[in-house]
Amino acid sequence: MTETNSRLANPQWGGRFATGPAAIMAEINASIGFDQRLWRQDIRGSLAHAAMLARVGLLTAGEEKQIRDGLHDIAEEIASGTFEFSSALEDIHMNIEARLSDRIGEAGKRLHTARSRNDQVATDFRLWVRDAIDGIEAQINALMTSLATRAHAYAATPMPGFTHLQVAQPVTFGHHLLAYVEMLARDRGRLNDARARLNECPLGSAALAGTSFPIDRKFTAQELGFTRPTANSLDAVSDRDFALEYLSALSILAMHLSRLAEEIVIWCSAPFGFIRLSDAFTTGSSIMPQKRNPDAAELVRAKIGRITGDFIGLLTVMKGLPLAYAKDTQEDKEPVFDATEAATLSLAAMDGMIRDMTPDQGRMRELAGAGFSTATDLADWLVRVLRVPFRTAHHVTGRLVGMAEAKGCDLSDLTLDEMRGVEPGIDASIFSVLTVEASLASRTSEGGTAPINVECAARLWLERLEGDA
Amino acid sequence: MTETNSRLANPQWGGRFATGPAAIMAEINASIGFDQRLWRQDIRGSLAHAAMLARVGLLTAGEEKQIRDGLHDIAEEIASGTFEFSSALEDIHMNIEARLSDRIGEAGKRLHTARSRNDQVATDFRLWVRDAIDGIEAQINALMTSLATRAHAYAATPMPGFTHLQVAQPVTFGHHLLAYVEMLARDRGRLNDARARLNECPLGSAALAGTSFPIDRKFTAQELGFTRPTANSLDAVSDRDFALEYLSALSILAMHLSRLAEEIVIWCSAPFGFIRLSDAFTTGSSIMPQKRNPDAAELVRAKIGRITGDFIGLLTVMKGLPLAYAKDTQEDKEPVFDATEAATLSLAAMDGMIRDMTPDQGRMRELAGAGFSTATDLADWLVRVLRVPFRTAHHVTGRLVGMAEAKGCDLSDLTLDEMRGVEPGIDASIFSVLTVEASLASRTSEGGTAPINVECAARLWLERLEGDA
Amino acid sequence: MTETNSRLANPQWGGRFATGPAAIMAEINASIGFDQRLWRQDIRGSLAHAAMLARVGLLTAGEEKQIRDGLHDIAEEIASGTFEFSSALEDIHMNIEARLSDRIGEAGKRLHTARSRNDQVATDFRLWVRDAIDGIEAQINALMTSLATRAHAYAATPMPGFTHLQVAQPVTFGHHLLAYVEMLARDRGRLNDARARLNECPLGSAALAGTSFPIDRKFTAQELGFTRPTANSLDAVSDRDFALEYLSALSILAMHLSRLAEEIVIWCSAPFGFIRLSDAFTTGSSIMPQKRNPDAAELVRAKIGRITGDFIGLLTVMKGLPLAYAKDTQEDKEPVFDATEAATLSLAAMDGMIRDMTPDQGRMRELAGAGFSTATDLADWLVRVLRVPFRTAHHVTGRLVGMAEAKGCDLSDLTLDEMRGVEPGIDASIFSVLTVEASLASRTSEGGTAPINVECAARLWLERLEGDA
Amino acid sequence: MTETNSRLANPQWGGRFATGPAAIMAEINASIGFDQRLWRQDIRGSLAHAAMLARVGLLTAGEEKQIRDGLHDIAEEIASGTFEFSSALEDIHMNIEARLSDRIGEAGKRLHTARSRNDQVATDFRLWVRDAIDGIEAQINALMTSLATRAHAYAATPMPGFTHLQVAQPVTFGHHLLAYVEMLARDRGRLNDARARLNECPLGSAALAGTSFPIDRKFTAQELGFTRPTANSLDAVSDRDFALEYLSALSILAMHLSRLAEEIVIWCSAPFGFIRLSDAFTTGSSIMPQKRNPDAAELVRAKIGRITGDFIGLLTVMKGLPLAYAKDTQEDKEPVFDATEAATLSLAAMDGMIRDMTPDQGRMRELAGAGFSTATDLADWLVRVLRVPFRTAHHVTGRLVGMAEAKGCDLSDLTLDEMRGVEPGIDASIFSVLTVEASLASRTSEGGTAPINVECAARLWLERLEGDA
Repeated sequence: MTETNSRLANPQWGGRFATGPAAIMAEINASIGFDQRLWRQDIRGSLAHAAMLARVGLLTAGEEKQIRDGLHDIAEEIASGTFEFSSALEDIHMNIEARLSDRIGEAGKRLHTARSRNDQVATDFRLWVRDAIDGIEAQINALMTSLATRAHAYAATPMPGFTHLQVAQPVTFGHHLLAYVEMLARDRGRLNDARARLNECPLGSAALAGTSFPIDRKFTAQELGFTRPTANSLDAVSDRDFALEYLSALSILAMHLSRLAEEIVIWCSAPFGFIRLSDAFTTGSSIMPQKRNPDAAELVRAKIGRITGDFIGLLTVMKGLPLAYAKDTQEDKEPVFDATEAATLSLAAMDGMIRDMTPDQGRMRELAGAGFSTATDLADWLVRVLRVPFRTAHHVTGRLVGMAEAKGCDLSDLTLDEMRGVEPGIDASIFSVLTVEASLASRTSEGGTAPINVECAARLWLERLEGDA
Repeated sequence: MTETNSRLANPQWGGRFATGPAAIMAEINASIGFDQRLWRQDIRGSLAHAAMLARVGLLTAGEEKQIRDGLHDIAEEIASGTFEFSSALEDIHMNIEARLSDRIGEAGKRLHTARSRNDQVATDFRLWVRDAIDGIEAQINALMTSLATRAHAYAATPMPGFTHLQVAQPVTFGHHLLAYVEMLARDRGRLNDARARLNECPLGSAALAGTSFPIDRKFTAQELGFTRPTANSLDAVSDRDFALEYLSALSILAMHLSRLAEEIVIWCSAPFGFIRLSDAFTTGSSIMPQKRNPDAAELVRAKIGRITGDFIGLLTVMKGLPLAYAKDTQEDKEPVFDATEAATLSLAAMDGMIRDMTPDQGRMRELAGAGFSTATDLADWLVRVLRVPFRTAHHVTGRLVGMAEAKGCDLSDLTLDEMRGVEPGIDASIFSVLTVEASLASRTSEGGTAPINVECAARLWLERLEGDA
Repeated sequence: MTETNSRLANPQWGGRFATGPAAIMAEINASIGFDQRLWRQDIRGSLAHAAMLARVGLLTAGEEKQIRDGLHDIAEEIASGTFEFSSALEDIHMNIEARLSDRIGEAGKRLHTARSRNDQVATDFRLWVRDAIDGIEAQINALMTSLATRAHAYAATPMPGFTHLQVAQPVTFGHHLLAYVEMLARDRGRLNDARARLNECPLGSAALAGTSFPIDRKFTAQELGFTRPTANSLDAVSDRDFALEYLSALSILAMHLSRLAEEIVIWCSAPFGFIRLSDAFTTGSSIMPQKRNPDAAELVRAKIGRITGDFIGLLTVMKGLPLAYAKDTQEDKEPVFDATEAATLSLAAMDGMIRDMTPDQGRMRELAGAGFSTATDLADWLVRVLRVPFRTAHHVTGRLVGMAEAKGCDLSDLTLDEMRGVEPGIDASIFSVLTVEASLASRTSEGGTAPINVECAARLWLERLEGDA
Repeated sequence: MTETNSRLANPQWGGRFATGPAAIMAEINASIGFDQRLWRQDIRGSLAHAAMLARVGLLTAGEEKQIRDGLHDIAEEIASGTFEFSSALEDIHMNIEARLSDRIGEAGKRLHTARSRNDQVATDFRLWVRDAIDGIEAQINALMTSLATRAHAYAATPMPGFTHLQVAQPVTFGHHLLAYVEMLARDRGRLNDARARLNECPLGSAALAGTSFPIDRKFTAQELGFTRPTANSLDAVSDRDFALEYLSALSILAMHLSRLAEEIVIWCSAPFGFIRLSDAFTTGSSIMPQKRNPDAAELVRAKIGRITGDFIGLLTVMKGLPLAYAKDTQEDKEPVFDATEAATLSLAAMDGMIRDMTPDQGRMRELAGAGFSTATDLADWLVRVLRVPFRTAHHVTGRLVGMAEAKGCDLSDLTLDEMRGVEPGIDASIFSVLTVEASLASRTSEGGTAPINVECAARLWLERLEGDA
């Protein structure tokens, strides 16, 4: 640059840590910057732990009452934004415990009896992931409902079914949308399974070996809605499977959303013109007001990147760690937070787009019939009516399509004589299978695209989803 | 090189495809090189499909019999190595179908009625993954059994419990081994859930839209051991969730094995000396016969790399694919085969090492008591006996450890007077908690390391595993 | 299944290793199954090593001659397929060395003086990667040449320029193709840099510490075409950066190819119809002969998955490995072989498609002018001719586009009076900027899409590429 | 929970977007939350652009002065924290441009002439990455200097050289540290190459097609320190190679740091006891004051996870994107920011640890001589002095080691007669090669571990690094 301006010079990357080792260590070590998001879970965990300690006589009823009131006050402070987080206290657990001792004195110092930060953080984080799963599942249900609702409305709307993005056979728009309902149902199933598997309480595993105090782990687990206590203390404090399984389920979910998002981008393009999104889900250009960029769909398509990165990142962290607790696992929270945020945004944006989009049924119908898309119906007619072997029927159909292509017409525009020139057994009833509508109506096999199937499948999903809500 | 030798020159990378486009296309397109591993599943699928076609009248009983016999003959040919695979026929499905028509003529050409390669390959591959899961689960059970067996034998054997690879508190070797049993139980659970979710039959979805033939998909599904037919034909032919979920479960399994493998490498090192592996699982050096390199453990540690890569690879393939079938999904098989092979080898090698290893109990006991590892027991005694608040007890313990460190002795070598100088309430009963054995015995909380717990947990697992077998 | 057939039962996954630990260890440990691909490099390395040993007097001239002849004979055997690889000898290095001793006796036993398998495999693998880079670079050059050749031919062919897959401004087809030439040039640059960085010779680092023999590492390095010997023996035997850097460069290359492949798939779709691929690069359907599935493009699009997986897999293997050699690094070869194969196939297939494709210039021209794609030209005219501030010009243009949209006409169909109603300064000269051709011709800024620029850029690339060849 | 408290209930995940689609779209679309970190680069870019516009007559000198002053004022506002960022203005570019128009009126509206956000953001982000590379390189240099400094000090300090974490041969501690200097030098090289490759200026590529304004791209490029303008406008606005190449280089760097961090963790463990870290880089325990957890090393070891995740995430985003700009690429910044922060912290922490650590030379020396670590020296003596073929020498050595092992003594404790029983040619001079010190001193081959080599290599690096600074 010809002009110097210190404001615009490179920040002193290398000089950031000039204040010495203490500064570096504090910066790399402290987690309060991100783990304060666990505050609700930390307080819930401490309330349950205190109740258990009182129950087994390690706290008096009065001490437990003091702790309970103190924790509720702290919850108020944090929720209202008046709590002062301290980096020197490293993490959310120490921040809350220190504040409790400040507020209620000696009783506060008894709270940490028979637990350690190792089992505490494992418990808090499981609770957080469990809450997150509940939230994501609710969003998946909402999106499934939106898809099934629109599928029901378009159960009989023809669109081209593609393979290799080439027109293959007609399907209905509703059928296409329901394919995503199936994918999302599996995503929900994976999250449900992950939730069930993580729902064991690490509290009471202490630092790594369990404790000599006569604690009641079943009580604590029950208080926190866990199915049971974890079975091995070394495993309990060092395991992060629950985060990994959650992230892997989100990765597959994000893949599904990326596919639907890609389709939306393609469908919105001028040459396709299958759907239109309103201003709410597109961005315009001040210079080309007719332009509607499907930004939301593109961003949803992209989110799979970070979610996959979050999964792979945490898996890499866990590779080869000896038991039990290692500081490496402090890297577990940010990817989970990031992926949750990305999934939440993606689901909300996709739900909005599905509800918002307006299909151009004429355009879709037009393409559904293009490209000899009912050639398979013709071949199936040969097999069904004339009992021609399937491979032979394929061959006959190929010749008829070639004939139509050469004439520049559709299959249904060939004359009966022309057809009989290729296969003498053909009669006029064949024309009844060559329309888009006939093709669709005939696909009544279980899971097939016949409008009657699709209407029924959509209604079934809507009933189930209402039942789930 | 001073010397030229055409044998050693670079292969002509760029010239490989000099024979023209056809050669390139054939090479990138053909899958028979790897998908021939699906032959058993392909034949099972065809047998079930033929039985269904006969049942609904699309094949005569005679045709079905011809097909059945033909397929069994082909199975013999493949199993015995006499089948000639043809690249020109692209994949295993076409190879088998073409051979069938060669052998039995017209009936063979009827087999493909009401199905397409799209639903056929989806079915075959689900069957393969289902078989693979069954195999991996059996191996996991075997490894869990080996671990639990050894854990039972070493339920009371002290070893140092580490956090940050620093000695923290004594645990038992059995307790440590059982931590991995818990991890493997979760891995098995994930595979079980994946198996249940994938167990739907795509056959009858045809190319993408279902079929107009009056097929009985429930029958086919039942024949193949599937719970039900898939519900949406577009989803059925384009879905590869089952492969992804399987790979993600293997990734987490591989991570667990990498941790145990890392521990074995560290335990075998001279400074640790906790265990010794026999020649069966180490490699030697012709020059240093005393050297036992834990190669098998290192290879198991490494396998997580390729398994993770396989998952991420397939997830990347699936990103943003429009419905329905796209050729991209042909890239699904190799990562699944590769990861299955890696997991199978890893589990077998780990099982072998666990059964093979000889712990040096003296060395582990020695380190278990080093580094004031019972300091927590002292603090807990203060809380339990003197009702000192936990945070205060920590402070007192810290002063006593400092005193012992300064004297160069263990905590149990401090005199009662020295201890009372720090905390007057201490009495002689404190010495009973300062030994490794007392510390271990006291950790009786659920999931804790007390030998009585560990012995019981190991026995419970062995009983369960026997029940599973 | 209703029918039992042992041929079709699950293979006994768990029973594979029934022959005992030795079998497992052999299977997980042996690398000869894949590392035999290094045979050329291994022999070249041994020839150079022997020449050096003779030069410094550690071999006699006669011994060196025996070794040289022996190695050449072995090269003949391997190249002609008569060499018998033995799993018991584990890897390619031991196979060749053992065979050499078989053939020439004592001299063969002297070859391993002053080296170990650790520096030998590091050298062989560097040579292999270096050869692979040379091959990939030649393929990149070929593809760049094909792209530039076609870009030159279509330097003035209008096509719609997209952002967000929405028509934005006209560009030329040649300009679009040249964008990929730029990407590939960077890929080539990355590979070149990787090649330069890896070109140091590990031989002579011995097991890990160097050697006491008076070897001449500079001589060996020079014999093998390396720039210099590696500088630190511990680093030399444990480093796999060269493989990782190569794989990361291939990952980015594969990403570029995935983008072009995606465009080809979209361009081939019926609604776009921009290009047509011949039978050589598409697969048909026996039933729909008009269908041309762009399988090759889809497979190229998919290959990024496995290449990325290969990179991440090896990076994961290397994570946290203590120095020096560890068996984990044996997992370095398969990902490199796999990614090389995938990149080689992708480049060849893409080159074929680029040379094969036939653009539909009419269809592209039609869409290039749709959607008010010259609105930016109008705004620029306002800025340039009337000196309206840019943001204001945007606003004026927006109103004119809105007017044309309402009338259902193009911008150039608005009357001068209509335009002047919005901006009185507009005169008839504005019409000269509203055509696709005028828009294209005006973009003469460096790197812009004006045909004159594109023609020149294409010619420049062709000249450079000819120079490189 | 037995107790309800709305503060602790799950946040309403699904309800976050109750305010309707506008809210979702705004949240997923806005980038100002993270891209404000580009403010310095955005202002530098605008200053250069304005200077160019004035130079070619598209701005008057007065307008350019107004813009320049305005931008400097805005820089002051941002640096001092008084600038109010607006989400409604989406990103940093619009925020600054809008503020400029607020401050200086009409001239501000002229700034965007001949550019678009697409080339603007590409330019800003390249500048940011270039600055980041400069910062990381400075940190790498600092770490290399610390390593070389300590290597120089410990050039002759024996430590066991490991393969497979088994003692193999003696090396020096300085030699071990210099291995990392070599790795870091390659990391620096990769970053340097990436910097050179990215150093082209996209400004002037406009939205995607270039511009019709008579701009001077070479001038702008020069003003911003770029080597040249980018060559193709479509490529320039859609390319994110520079970010990917940077992230891949950081991934490999992070892998190196993970290896050193792993070694530090192992070296700090009680059984190894090779080094000690001070309180500055360890965390203690209030209960076990002697405990020094190497948290900083563990966190550095873990950072490879997120950096790898960042690379893979962005690569996944870019997969299959059609040209030119797509909103997906907005996902490019966060991974780059995150990885830069992680690398910066890791390098700083590692530098601190290297300068901080205290080796226990006695303990290292003790282990360096254990396990017959000089057996290779014995074999080499046989080859060198007796001219025994290497493979035969190995065999003889193996027998001698077996004899020593059976006697429970070191090799040097065998008598000459005992040795001669195995190999009659052995004479007393053999004892001179069996000590750790003799072994080290003999490894004088280039890159070998002889103290004289190490001292020289360390000094050479220190001189080079001083030259670079």
